[in-house]
Amino acid sequence: MDKTDTVSENSVTLQENKSLYIIKIGGNVIDNSENLYRFLKDFEGLDGFKILVHGGGKVATQIAEELGIEAKMVDGRRITDIETLRVVTMVYGGLINKNIVAQLQRFGNNAIGLTGADGNFIRAKKRLVKTIDYGFVGDIDKDSINPENISRLIKAGFTPVFCALTHDGEGQLLNTNADTIASALAVSLSSLYKTTLIYCFEKKGVLQDINDEESLIREIDTIRYEELKAQHIIHSGMLPKLDNAFTAISCGVKAVIIGKSDDLGQLKENKPFGTRLSKNA
Amino acid sequence: MDKTDTVSENSVTLQENKSLYIIKIGGNVIDNSENLYRFLKDFEGLDGFKILVHGGGKVATQIAEELGIEAKMVDGRRITDIETLRVVTMVYGGLINKNIVAQLQRFGNNAIGLTGADGNFIRAKKRLVKTIDYGFVGDIDKDSINPENISRLIKAGFTPVFCALTHDGEGQLLNTNADTIASALAVSLSSLYKTTLIYCFEKKGVLQDINDEESLIREIDTIRYEELKAQHIIHSGMLPKLDNAFTAISCGVKAVIIGKSDDLGQLKENKPFGTRLSKNA
Repeated sequence: MDKTDTVSENSVTLQENKSLYIIKIGGNVIDNSENLYRFLKDFEGLDGFKILVHGGGKVATQIAEELGIEAKMVDGRRITDIETLRVVTMVYGGLINKNIVAQLQRFGNNAIGLTGADGNFIRAKKRLVKTIDYGFVGDIDKDSINPENISRLIKAGFTPVFCALTHDGEGQLLNTNADTIASALAVSLSSLYKTTLIYCFEKKGVLQDINDEESLIREIDTIRYEELKAQHIIHSGMLPKLDNAFTAISCGVKAVIIGKSDDLGQLKENKPFGTRLSKNA
Repeated sequence: MDKTDTVSENSVTLQENKSLYIIKIGGNVIDNSENLYRFLKDFEGLDGFKILVHGGGKVATQIAEELGIEAKMVDGRRITDIETLRVVTMVYGGLINKNIVAQLQRFGNNAIGLTGADGNFIRAKKRLVKTIDYGFVGDIDKDSINPENISRLIKAGFTPVFCALTHDGEGQLLNTNADTIASALAVSLSSLYKTTLIYCFEKKGVLQDINDEESLIREIDTIRYEELKAQHIIHSGMLPKLDNAFTAISCGVKAVIIGKSDDLGQLKENKPFGTRLSKNA
């Protein structure tokens, strides 16, 4: 890279209105090395700026078991005690994150693996104890992310790869839901980029009939969403996911796509991919 | 930060001849939370650009034991088999690295925790099998590090914190000695910065009498080094460390300081710290 490029790439305003993908993958991709390989190759192939956010996968549970740490549940909710936090710091922040980075580098993508503590990128507040003490779980809000801080990294030529860890700014790492991190990143970075948030999961997208993968709904805008809810086509499990997606859209995210990680390559080829959620035109 | 600052900070040539500290800490600092706290506070207080490199500590051995992974030794040398690599990826890249980053952020330092895979910062070659198969151990050479790549991160306002992991560029993480990483970083970045390489260890520096901490030698240049060797004052254990230091100096590093992590605060106050090795004036 010559000097002129460096200077122009690092000027804040020039990047405005460029597109940025924030893509979240979960355990279903991470746990299967073939799926992960294909996904990362497709991810690398996507044009433009991008951020990857990954969840945990089964390996965290396996390692915790091997270390004799029992999963603690209260009212069906997982508790992150100090021992569990150590495990997720090792597995999310170390094992999974750094192996993803090494793979992306193999494919020529200049990835950097991060927690929210790195670069002070995502600051969270330890969840207050009301009826349940969730332990070292961090909640994030609209002030948690400084978009220009992350943008400096992106503009320096790096692809951020975030795991599901944040920090409180006082030296404490915290466990934070990866879906929530992806959404917060997309909303925050909408002030600098045209952001598209992509959730990869095990289905092809939002299905008209949950048992028929061919009944994929390609596009849902805010009006159609209200119709689908009224017709009870959006079923209960999908409701919070889609509500969160439309909240992100109302906060500046250009579109949210829900699709299958195996199909990400279609996006690169400008073919339809998953279900695209957006504001009504 | 305003836009003008961003642009000027990211121009390559403006940073030339600025000073950069590369500081390496080992297990003796990492294993003691009070020592680590004090060291990181002093590290944060140092003016100018800086990079931290950290080794392992006892926790990797503990976790490996808890997971039932035996330390494999051949002819007194540790072997990094695939199971051991998983453990060090978790412990070095996750647990230790991210907790150091969270602490540095607490002190106001904008740290980013890294392996050599991140940003393709340190590429290594898996050690060839001759008489011993060391397993997933990476050796680095003069082409392993692209100084401008790391410089982009530094100039974007971040402090790199490296653990003792590299990658081969083909998706494989590798275990690499932290002293070697620190030295290679210092040599490579000497093309862009006035680099000072600091090794923190358990002694105050090079001692005239190994049993007398008060017999610290403050300065050793290349001529004095030959004299000390001829007088057998530099003892056998210290010899490879100092030989490596003078090699780094001959490759462009301005000075190498060997000192005690507890004393790093003295450097900030421009007081003598450790033993300073440099070219003869």
